[in-house]
Amino acid sequence: MDLQAIVDGIVAEMQPRFGEGKVADYIPELARIDPNQFGIAITTVDGQTYTAGHADVPFSIQSISKVFMLTLALGKAGEGVWKRVGREPSGSSFNSIVQLEHEHGIPRNPFINAGAIVVTDMVLSGYKPREAIGEFLRFMRFLADDDSITIDHKVAGSEQTTGYRNFALANFMRGFGNLEHNVEMVLGVYFHQCALAMNCVQLSHAGLYLANRGTNPLSGFSVVSPKRARRINALMLTCGHYDGSGDFAYRVGLPGKSGVGGGILAIAPGKASIAVWSPGLNKVGNSALGSEALELLASRTGWSVFGN
Amino acid sequence: MDLQAIVDGIVAEMQPRFGEGKVADYIPELARIDPNQFGIAITTVDGQTYTAGHADVPFSIQSISKVFMLTLALGKAGEGVWKRVGREPSGSSFNSIVQLEHEHGIPRNPFINAGAIVVTDMVLSGYKPREAIGEFLRFMRFLADDDSITIDHKVAGSEQTTGYRNFALANFMRGFGNLEHNVEMVLGVYFHQCALAMNCVQLSHAGLYLANRGTNPLSGFSVVSPKRARRINALMLTCGHYDGSGDFAYRVGLPGKSGVGGGILAIAPGKASIAVWSPGLNKVGNSALGSEALELLASRTGWSVFGN
Amino acid sequence: MDLQAIVDGIVAEMQPRFGEGKVADYIPELARIDPNQFGIAITTVDGQTYTAGHADVPFSIQSISKVFMLTLALGKAGEGVWKRVGREPSGSSFNSIVQLEHEHGIPRNPFINAGAIVVTDMVLSGYKPREAIGEFLRFMRFLADDDSITIDHKVAGSEQTTGYRNFALANFMRGFGNLEHNVEMVLGVYFHQCALAMNCVQLSHAGLYLANRGTNPLSGFSVVSPKRARRINALMLTCGHYDGSGDFAYRVGLPGKSGVGGGILAIAPGKASIAVWSPGLNKVGNSALGSEALELLASRTGWSVFGN
Amino acid sequence: MDLQAIVDGIVAEMQPRFGEGKVADYIPELARIDPNQFGIAITTVDGQTYTAGHADVPFSIQSISKVFMLTLALGKAGEGVWKRVGREPSGSSFNSIVQLEHEHGIPRNPFINAGAIVVTDMVLSGYKPREAIGEFLRFMRFLADDDSITIDHKVAGSEQTTGYRNFALANFMRGFGNLEHNVEMVLGVYFHQCALAMNCVQLSHAGLYLANRGTNPLSGFSVVSPKRARRINALMLTCGHYDGSGDFAYRVGLPGKSGVGGGILAIAPGKASIAVWSPGLNKVGNSALGSEALELLASRTGWSVFGN
Repeated sequence: MDLQAIVDGIVAEMQPRFGEGKVADYIPELARIDPNQFGIAITTVDGQTYTAGHADVPFSIQSISKVFMLTLALGKAGEGVWKRVGREPSGSSFNSIVQLEHEHGIPRNPFINAGAIVVTDMVLSGYKPREAIGEFLRFMRFLADDDSITIDHKVAGSEQTTGYRNFALANFMRGFGNLEHNVEMVLGVYFHQCALAMNCVQLSHAGLYLANRGTNPLSGFSVVSPKRARRINALMLTCGHYDGSGDFAYRVGLPGKSGVGGGILAIAPGKASIAVWSPGLNKVGNSALGSEALELLASRTGWSVFGN
Repeated sequence: MDLQAIVDGIVAEMQPRFGEGKVADYIPELARIDPNQFGIAITTVDGQTYTAGHADVPFSIQSISKVFMLTLALGKAGEGVWKRVGREPSGSSFNSIVQLEHEHGIPRNPFINAGAIVVTDMVLSGYKPREAIGEFLRFMRFLADDDSITIDHKVAGSEQTTGYRNFALANFMRGFGNLEHNVEMVLGVYFHQCALAMNCVQLSHAGLYLANRGTNPLSGFSVVSPKRARRINALMLTCGHYDGSGDFAYRVGLPGKSGVGGGILAIAPGKASIAVWSPGLNKVGNSALGSEALELLASRTGWSVFGN
Repeated sequence: MDLQAIVDGIVAEMQPRFGEGKVADYIPELARIDPNQFGIAITTVDGQTYTAGHADVPFSIQSISKVFMLTLALGKAGEGVWKRVGREPSGSSFNSIVQLEHEHGIPRNPFINAGAIVVTDMVLSGYKPREAIGEFLRFMRFLADDDSITIDHKVAGSEQTTGYRNFALANFMRGFGNLEHNVEMVLGVYFHQCALAMNCVQLSHAGLYLANRGTNPLSGFSVVSPKRARRINALMLTCGHYDGSGDFAYRVGLPGKSGVGGGILAIAPGKASIAVWSPGLNKVGNSALGSEALELLASRTGWSVFGN
Repeated sequence: MDLQAIVDGIVAEMQPRFGEGKVADYIPELARIDPNQFGIAITTVDGQTYTAGHADVPFSIQSISKVFMLTLALGKAGEGVWKRVGREPSGSSFNSIVQLEHEHGIPRNPFINAGAIVVTDMVLSGYKPREAIGEFLRFMRFLADDDSITIDHKVAGSEQTTGYRNFALANFMRGFGNLEHNVEMVLGVYFHQCALAMNCVQLSHAGLYLANRGTNPLSGFSVVSPKRARRINALMLTCGHYDGSGDFAYRVGLPGKSGVGGGILAIAPGKASIAVWSPGLNKVGNSALGSEALELLASRTGWSVFGN
């Protein structure tokens, strides 16, 4: 299978449609991004990387960070994580507060905002906010084996100023006793983790442990056990695309996690880690061209967790 | 891998716990089942069947029928099915009507009751109710290659008399114009499809096409295309266990569909079709011991769609 | 105060706007009504009636019947009525089923459809449907002191055929055990009570007991105790206009009950019973011109329960 | 009618039940109140005040302040108030956020927390927070004709520290653009208005304008027009007791507003302003004994807006 030809083909096919979708506008700093960009990178479990398009342009990973923070929280609290957050698809949009009221402050899963805020609260335990941000940054550099990765503080600041909905969610959960730290501290960390800037190559490297039984084949380091890798993949598949998770599973058939920056990380277990990026979002908040590119990729490679 | 030893081991481990959970009591005829029963059957794609426990005792497949009716509807209407039913996890219980009101009569997926009723309405198109029931029964006999499969008319009648919630759902959707046939006709078929009686061996045979690229290896007949088989598996994984779908994916890692009769069909793509049955249900309405047995099985066989 | 001049003035003011609003179209038989009609009748507690416009044209009272059926049910079951239906405003539309699911089959008040169906079930107790309909008709003739009042069986039939939402509500409540009779029987009565045809004069007579301490001054008969009359008025004020009840209280300041046929009954305690009718509905389902006419009337007479 | 005998009788009847209900515990400073207290004061429109029990013990008026802040906001913005807040009963608890999400940041009425926060935002317009608090305090002293009224800063501080749910509501509305000032400023004022300490005598004086066509008979000053007084009364009747408003209207039949401090202000239009206080709350969050005392009072005086 000629993966280079496949990614080149996908970029060629997407090119006429560059700019489709709607760039996230609720974070002012993200609203300025040029929508006419599209990048893809595949890194296979034997360490080869195939790229096409704007694969080396950094973008804000936003909610994709939730996968990595969950990995940290599971390392710290183990299965105890699930006392404070569920693992069921939400059946509603990424920042809905309705479910939280009905379920008394327990978010449905770690990949909606409320759930990710709780996960951040767990990772923060024992740290000062600045230290927790440092810990996360080190973890991402370690996973991607790339010390040039940084946080875009402008984006973090932009979210801090306008993130009313996240303040609402955090205060709401704090009222139910499901945040240990004060709201400003937790959201301070949360906005910084979301503001991490990575390019497709880096992101495909960082996700590789999920495709390779928990071990990063580039560095040889074990990140999580094989069982935990499978479980994180399961969560990505059922909950990784907000209220478009079922559709993504149906069309693409791979675990994935999207961010409002336009990035998507997808995992083909035993085969590869894939990162795509294109800023325009579809109506459920996932990269429009990114989702379609992954559908093409899955179809052309035959990669699907649901059979070949 | 000695599958016979594995299924024997699982039955031995479950035996002290026979009777756990709560038998469905809202269908009088089902409430009478002896809860101290547990069966398991695995049929591999090379046609071998391994059984243990009460694998040859027929039980009411109930909602597992939704997988097969969806297969029929996709054959009839193709992707047009998705105009009338979504494919997102519901975030609520199997018979909730709240979502239907919020989304104007379009059920979230074909595996909750409302969605399955719409699917039945599609299958009914061009048929009389009695013919549609016959069509479904023939299809199930064909899939399982077993003409002894029958419908338990007592169970169907019991549901007909007490199925107020399903009458509510159907009338509600009819009010939104999302049922073509009258409510009594559609539910007449629906209650009969749910009342199909199968044992674990038959059910593992019937599901085998989903594990084998759409083709039943026992008969050699193609049932659906490989792509459609993958897609049905995807729906089972994201929506197959009501509001316990995320948990099942996390713990078991296989597409599956449960029924309130206590049966679960699980698919290990490329490997096997598995049927378990034990009448006691857990609090989200799935077989308590059946779910745990599948977790053990997945762990011991290493079968998981999320990596090995 | 010259009430005749006031009602004449109101009709003159409304005339250029005849036809405003939208005639209810979900009951086919009602959809055919000529929207260019407007009638008003005031009957004072000393027995004088003042009319203007189409005050003698019969219309379908629809949900206004809920006030009279509640009166019958309270007579039969007393305060026991409130075990099966609440008395809080609903915060949602007249035929919402969401609240019913959240509150386990107990409707929020007797003036939304679900609540009225439960009330009808209570009135039906001990009767055959035909007898209960007869009882209701006799009661209405007695209240209005007019034996010419009849049920429009075409309208009742039209609702029977298309009332899917009401069938959904009734089945839903039956599933929760909050209906004693079967759904067809209860809705059979319900559709007939809604299909009662009255004109404004008759309706203003029928409501007079609520303005006069429970006694009909035309006949001298006591219908309910003064306390019960006050309580029914309280329910009309807080719940009488679906999700427009607060607005009606704010603008008109009188207890009232609207119907989708375009009628509204309003009560000025100690003063008068008022009926207006105009078929076009506003967006919350109450007569558009009727609501405005009552606002004018309240303003010009100084009748308001909230002060003068 | 001997009002002194009536209030004495009510206190005598309530005495054995002192301490019933549950003191609000989510504001630490309020949780310490001795529950064995009960006071009542009636001030008639001719200026006579009748008291019994602990009528001169100051308590935290909490949500009763919403009536007076609404009066200020209507004075400032007129009917423009209703662009940013509705006037329908909420159908849910006082601090629910669900409705806000469904209705895009527009609270249902000014007497639930979210609505009152918006009203406070309006009153704050053109002021610094400290000035707005001063304005409110002056208004209350003017209404009660009593310069000894003060704000309990300990209570305000206690709410500031623990009011997560209110921070959630405010941030949520700010995210929808329905708050002009920043959340800390608005809630700073809000917590102070709620922390106003008054006794029953003062409160009955302060509410008297609502019973007397908008004019305070004690001072002779006009506060609002007769029409506005009626409209505020209408809002109190339909929305004044959270999700117990319908029940209060049914049982008491007077406009009223309760607070979690255990106070209730009730208005008998044209007759009197009544304040009761007892700290123990019933399950919908209104004073348990206070509600019952008002039911007795209404019954014994014959005061009801719904007839005599």
